[in-house]
Amino acid sequence: MLPTDGLGIVSAVARVVIVGAGAVGLFYGARLAAAGHDVVFVARRELEALRQRGLELRSPEGDLRLSTVAAVGYGEPVVPPADLLLCTLKTTALDVAAELCAPAVGPGTRVVALMNGLDVEAPLAERFGAARVFGVMAFVGVHREEPGVVRHVAYGRVTVGHLLDDRTEAEHVAELFRSAGIEAVVAPSLRYARWEKLCWNVPFNGLSVAADGADTATILADEELRRLAERAMREVVATANADLAARGAEERFVADDVVSRLFAQTVALGPYRTSMLIDYEHGRPLEVEAILGNPVRRARELHLEVPTMEALYALVRARDRRLARDREAR
Amino acid sequence: MLPTDGLGIVSAVARVVIVGAGAVGLFYGARLAAAGHDVVFVARRELEALRQRGLELRSPEGDLRLSTVAAVGYGEPVVPPADLLLCTLKTTALDVAAELCAPAVGPGTRVVALMNGLDVEAPLAERFGAARVFGVMAFVGVHREEPGVVRHVAYGRVTVGHLLDDRTEAEHVAELFRSAGIEAVVAPSLRYARWEKLCWNVPFNGLSVAADGADTATILADEELRRLAERAMREVVATANADLAARGAEERFVADDVVSRLFAQTVALGPYRTSMLIDYEHGRPLEVEAILGNPVRRARELHLEVPTMEALYALVRARDRRLARDREAR
Repeated sequence: MLPTDGLGIVSAVARVVIVGAGAVGLFYGARLAAAGHDVVFVARRELEALRQRGLELRSPEGDLRLSTVAAVGYGEPVVPPADLLLCTLKTTALDVAAELCAPAVGPGTRVVALMNGLDVEAPLAERFGAARVFGVMAFVGVHREEPGVVRHVAYGRVTVGHLLDDRTEAEHVAELFRSAGIEAVVAPSLRYARWEKLCWNVPFNGLSVAADGADTATILADEELRRLAERAMREVVATANADLAARGAEERFVADDVVSRLFAQTVALGPYRTSMLIDYEHGRPLEVEAILGNPVRRARELHLEVPTMEALYALVRARDRRLARDREAR
Repeated sequence: MLPTDGLGIVSAVARVVIVGAGAVGLFYGARLAAAGHDVVFVARRELEALRQRGLELRSPEGDLRLSTVAAVGYGEPVVPPADLLLCTLKTTALDVAAELCAPAVGPGTRVVALMNGLDVEAPLAERFGAARVFGVMAFVGVHREEPGVVRHVAYGRVTVGHLLDDRTEAEHVAELFRSAGIEAVVAPSLRYARWEKLCWNVPFNGLSVAADGADTATILADEELRRLAERAMREVVATANADLAARGAEERFVADDVVSRLFAQTVALGPYRTSMLIDYEHGRPLEVEAILGNPVRRARELHLEVPTMEALYALVRARDRRLARDREAR
């Protein structure tokens, strides 16, 4: 466990560095800055807008306008280093994530992987040590409307886990989010929480692209696609349970419960377009390895048959490669 | 068994009616007509071209020009009826196939389903009786270049089976093809031959569309797509063997042999675009039920798990439905 210094990161002003200024990073950064924390963005595309015009958050919970925002470019030193670093990069940049975070990491920095998918904490743990690495899952509907402007549509809750499942450590991070009015719960185990989110993300992100542009309502209305979604979900549950067992964890998912709960929630969601579908429609790199590839590889290590997950992985991966070729050709 | 009348359909001039004047129907019709048989086409789109300009076959084996061709429209009586009727409709028209064939079917007519997929003989058998229904699988590369003009690229061999597996009956049909210089073999069992073709068609037709435009070389070069193709092929073999066993048939497929043989053949084929992919690229209805849906339904009846076949079926079916909506919107 890391020492919590005199200041802590909760009771006083914390220095928060956000690496990756996409919609999610800008949203949480704006909320933390508005709560009085000392926030710095590490950005590339968004850098000039943040420096020149600041940051605007348009939200049903109240708009927010930060006329001056601290922002540095990738690779520039961040002095002093962060108390808490939120890595909100897309997982398609996971191979350079640790490199981009490093300039803001000091001896006391807690490093949070606020990203989708499985094993996304691994490169941060390898570089900075597992004891100070966390995973956060955000349940939030946000998108970037224009440079420096983020639209918040709904939700905002985060689930926090510590990579070694130190709950006291995870509570520190959760408290920081709460200090900005954000609902934050601590997961009993980070791995369990990651798999819980994958139970939804694998079938619905996967199918939204594999079925070439299907929103959640389209998937649910088509009996064959719906069957496929359920089958994929059950394969994720089986993989999750085997993975948890192999790690000596005690939690298990009950497949029927997961299926009935997540399908009911998805019905309630209406015609929702997954993040992967939106990336696909914009021709952007897809988070295929973190969301589909890593779970499939884990299943293979555990000698499980996951044919539906494998089909979704193979088909989405083929599309992602085609998108990459199309981008190169432009 | 049907009586073979004095003329037979082999030794003399046979009256052959081709229902459906796509590239395949035009190719075999032209060859049979050139061999001296009395050929009538039952056509819709191609009708005027056939009547006004006749039929031209451009082939590496020699071009063929038939300046006058007998052709009637859908629903018009065909007098006298056929000795042999070749139903070469796309299986997307399977629900009206018997209706379109009926005007050319007399008491002595043999009816051949020259179509892709499983159970495509069923509507013809229901209408005309199984004893005179045959299935033919064509291995031929042809496409329609313009109205009344067909380009023959390669191959041409047919495999003939009788629906009740009367080999003498099947030999009559094979002989007719041979009389026009077409290589024709009689399948030991029609069902076995249908499944044999599906071992290739399910994975490669399915993936070519599900992976959104992948030719066979692309599928083979992508390790995950290739794995998916092999898995689908093994599921087809398992379904085929269970289906053959349930029917009391003795033939079985050996999965490893099928996989090694068909993959080697596919490598040799080069970057081949499946018929389903070509339909997909042209926005035409896909033969999804005959090639994917019927095999999946048979597997379900047999209580077999065929997750990869199901995934291909669900995803191709979703695309086919989207194509249908797009056509309606035009």
